[in-house]
Amino acid sequence: MPAELHILGCGSATPTPGRNPTAQFIRLNQTDILIDCGEGTQIQMLRFRIKPMKIRHVFISHLHGDHYLGLPGLISSMHLMGRKESLTVYGPPELEEILNFQFRVSETRLNFPLQFVQTQTEGKQFLVETGGFKIYSFPLKHRIPCTGFLLMENTPRRKLRPEMMKAYQVPVEAFRQIKDGADYVQGDGTVIPNSRLTFPGMRPVSYAYCSDTAPDAEVLNVIRGADYLYHEATFLHELLERAEETYHTTAQQAGEIAREAGVGKLFIGHYSSRYRDIKPLQEEASVQFQNTLAVEDGMVIHLLPFSTDND
Amino acid sequence: MPAELHILGCGSATPTPGRNPTAQFIRLNQTDILIDCGEGTQIQMLRFRIKPMKIRHVFISHLHGDHYLGLPGLISSMHLMGRKESLTVYGPPELEEILNFQFRVSETRLNFPLQFVQTQTEGKQFLVETGGFKIYSFPLKHRIPCTGFLLMENTPRRKLRPEMMKAYQVPVEAFRQIKDGADYVQGDGTVIPNSRLTFPGMRPVSYAYCSDTAPDAEVLNVIRGADYLYHEATFLHELLERAEETYHTTAQQAGEIAREAGVGKLFIGHYSSRYRDIKPLQEEASVQFQNTLAVEDGMVIHLLPFSTDND
Repeated sequence: MPAELHILGCGSATPTPGRNPTAQFIRLNQTDILIDCGEGTQIQMLRFRIKPMKIRHVFISHLHGDHYLGLPGLISSMHLMGRKESLTVYGPPELEEILNFQFRVSETRLNFPLQFVQTQTEGKQFLVETGGFKIYSFPLKHRIPCTGFLLMENTPRRKLRPEMMKAYQVPVEAFRQIKDGADYVQGDGTVIPNSRLTFPGMRPVSYAYCSDTAPDAEVLNVIRGADYLYHEATFLHELLERAEETYHTTAQQAGEIAREAGVGKLFIGHYSSRYRDIKPLQEEASVQFQNTLAVEDGMVIHLLPFSTDND
Repeated sequence: MPAELHILGCGSATPTPGRNPTAQFIRLNQTDILIDCGEGTQIQMLRFRIKPMKIRHVFISHLHGDHYLGLPGLISSMHLMGRKESLTVYGPPELEEILNFQFRVSETRLNFPLQFVQTQTEGKQFLVETGGFKIYSFPLKHRIPCTGFLLMENTPRRKLRPEMMKAYQVPVEAFRQIKDGADYVQGDGTVIPNSRLTFPGMRPVSYAYCSDTAPDAEVLNVIRGADYLYHEATFLHELLERAEETYHTTAQQAGEIAREAGVGKLFIGHYSSRYRDIKPLQEEASVQFQNTLAVEDGMVIHLLPFSTDND
């Protein structure tokens, strides 16, 4: 299982019963990460029995409260629970100032190393390779500096065909390079092409996270062909004007973006608190892009690679 | 009903399932206030159907995260829900800096006036008169500057005895002063003492809030004779050493404090997350002071005045 996505919060600025502010917990192979951390995220983790202590990396998109106000409390709880392992936070530069100021006034001296990596909104930025994935940030189009995140699984190694290893008497020492794609050169100089010696590995999977943002053509270039796209859909299209004013996206627009980017599946979320029922948002996006899921708090989604026409 | 106390969170630094960090909502006659505002307080309000928009005053004891991290999100939600009425926050000076910095980076310009009143830890301080109560802060003994809060109902006016108003032919214009305790002077100079003309009004009620703190003799002088005392009881007495190290109180000590202060009833809370079951804390405090209640999230307690031996 390359990746497992847990929706801890799919609400927007004001929480509603059953819908917390934004947070997503993702298990990438054996590595746990968190994307955004709205107020109450650590309480949602308790509810859904997710252990915060194993989170290695936290990615914060921007400094609207519904995307980061749970972070100081989460870090403080990790400290109180005796964490020793390093934690890295990726986010806008002012986030580091906020955290440091809060730790200073509460006289908290963390027991574990807290690293901070500043994101910027100039262009796509490589952040870290972890759990078999490369993680990038990229600029979104919001009222304040904001980035999305792109998770790209490394290309899995090819699988050896045992009968070919035997037939060509390939020595064990050569296996690793062949799994990585090398041809095999026999003693007499004959080249056995890799494609004869191996099966392709599983397709790598990719996940793009876009919240909060107005629709943006430049984002399309970054997320094109992603297996999974989480895109905010704060409003129904009848509130397009409100969406434009606030630099948000409508469900119809989210569907259009998914279609134009040619993703495998669209998740929508970040619903305005005015929508008690999210079915109309799901339906509106689905008209544009059929494979849409309106996520809800507590959902767990296994991110398997899609078999697409390009395979 | 002079006061109605709603426990929104009775946990301590790390939340546990069913126990949020500290927050208490209190309705003082028609005025709503909040004491402390740990992470998730606004979500608890949704759960318990408490309207945040009517809160007029917020009192923050100190800047450990479990007592204030819910405040930026609560204020932001009030703003987004279109609040116009002024809100006053009472707390340590750095709290104002934290709020202002967070509003600046999120480019939030509040639609309503936010007043800030700094508390200090030099001595008892009158903060505000609201909802028929005078509210004071007073220093507690914690690792960082921290105050408790004392809510003292104003002495309710005396009740006129209708038959006496008639017998002495007291004119309506004199009623107000008599309710306030004045004697009535007849035309011929005869003084009718107030005690003949009125019944006493209902006894005023008082509530003292002490969290977080080590036991402190000076606090006793402030809270003496309060009808209700909320006192933290983070640990069982077997962890006295840990309590002393962290400037907290054990359940036994909380009971002793209630007894020595001669309060009417003790509420304990702020339980360490190590206690899944709070019965042992309740029992330990009760040995020292029988009228003890170990509070839980969601409890609503009507604060009626006690009839004490001093009456």
